[in-house]
Amino acid sequence: MIQMLSKNEIKEIRALGQKKFRDERRLFVVEGEKLVAEALQSGWDVVAHFRAEDIGEEAMARISQLTHPSPALAVVRQPNHEPPVIAPDELVLALDGVRDPGNLGTIVRIADWFGIRQILSSEDTVECFNPKVVQATMGAIFRVRVHYCDLTHCLARAPIPSATEAISVYGTFLEGDDIYQTPLTKGGILVMGSEANGISPAVAATVTRKLFIPPFPQGAHTSESLNVAVATAIACSEFRRRH
Amino acid sequence: MIQMLSKNEIKEIRALGQKKFRDERRLFVVEGEKLVAEALQSGWDVVAHFRAEDIGEEAMARISQLTHPSPALAVVRQPNHEPPVIAPDELVLALDGVRDPGNLGTIVRIADWFGIRQILSSEDTVECFNPKVVQATMGAIFRVRVHYCDLTHCLARAPIPSATEAISVYGTFLEGDDIYQTPLTKGGILVMGSEANGISPAVAATVTRKLFIPPFPQGAHTSESLNVAVATAIACSEFRRRH
Repeated sequence: MIQMLSKNEIKEIRALGQKKFRDERRLFVVEGEKLVAEALQSGWDVVAHFRAEDIGEEAMARISQLTHPSPALAVVRQPNHEPPVIAPDELVLALDGVRDPGNLGTIVRIADWFGIRQILSSEDTVECFNPKVVQATMGAIFRVRVHYCDLTHCLARAPIPSATEAISVYGTFLEGDDIYQTPLTKGGILVMGSEANGISPAVAATVTRKLFIPPFPQGAHTSESLNVAVATAIACSEFRRRH
Repeated sequence: MIQMLSKNEIKEIRALGQKKFRDERRLFVVEGEKLVAEALQSGWDVVAHFRAEDIGEEAMARISQLTHPSPALAVVRQPNHEPPVIAPDELVLALDGVRDPGNLGTIVRIADWFGIRQILSSEDTVECFNPKVVQATMGAIFRVRVHYCDLTHCLARAPIPSATEAISVYGTFLEGDDIYQTPLTKGGILVMGSEANGISPAVAATVTRKLFIPPFPQGAHTSESLNVAVATAIACSEFRRRH
């Protein structure tokens, strides 16, 4: 049976390609067999899902954000995450101005792999329900909470379980200590900076331990930096290896 | 002084966006102030370079492959790399069918950071002078040699310094041994597989040590895999950390 999509429905779904409408409707779109299956199993509210074999290829092409539309698309309600609370020994990521959707999506996927369940993001970090971010997470978006906040404020008073306990705030800096040689606590907050400018001075002031991923051989003339997702992966791997 | 570009010159430069013409002319294009500066310092043969302030914004837009043309563009001759010879204790990457230009570019940048000077690539790996690859390397393309070869053949008879010495061939597999717990030699070949299918059976047969980057906590229900560039970064970091 062909499920007909009205012009208005098509318009509503297409509009979710724009942040303004996603914010207004509190909805987002996932595409692809795998992502739609993950959405349906996630416990998140899937308000509608469509298959090209039901609605037709042409209608799918009209509601899809992809150059090559996939056979499946779902419209999902954005969750109302509780304000972040960090458990003792919990490792959390904080992102200071990550702008590239592919980088954010890859970072969410890395977080998922390494059992990181929460990401604190500055307000100028790309929105996590941007279609390019969602696709790049490969489904990890359903398992990792991305909170947006005033990062400086949030880190200065990290929402720690007990006010008597200090929480370690790590960040990567060119002048930081060799990550392989530095003591790392099991839990803490690991701050990663923007593609262009790294960690901003205000956020840097909240970092209690500066880390650096050394090139090989040390001091070699190489690229100036690593991509932010790549640096996140190496740092997360090193935290998890120790514990 | 305005440097005029003829219609034919514009056509020739634009054509370098296509692999067919890059192969024929043995040239490629780099764009952006930083990459052009790296090209000029690299010792590679820069056959022409252009600045928007000299040729005009309009001509730059016509020769550029970018949606937002940068102020600088250079045409560079592809080097004639010698057939690969692997020194004792040298760490080399091998790529089996990496198709995404962004992934290959990021991997070249990772290799550069970790002092890896040679990458062996299967014939079905994306061409390293593809403009998207070149841009993603951020200039590392001038410091890392990417060789294309029949990878199975090449790994089965790895070009080792002495025929009496065996070279370790590592690869990442879901059923591999925990990379953090496995002995790693200083040198060797680290094989990374394609985005969709991992390492092909023929190449897998040449691997002497299967590795796995464990999720955290071990056995957790997470994403099925890591992005190939991310996995490359973590594995390279772990090899370099040990030595």
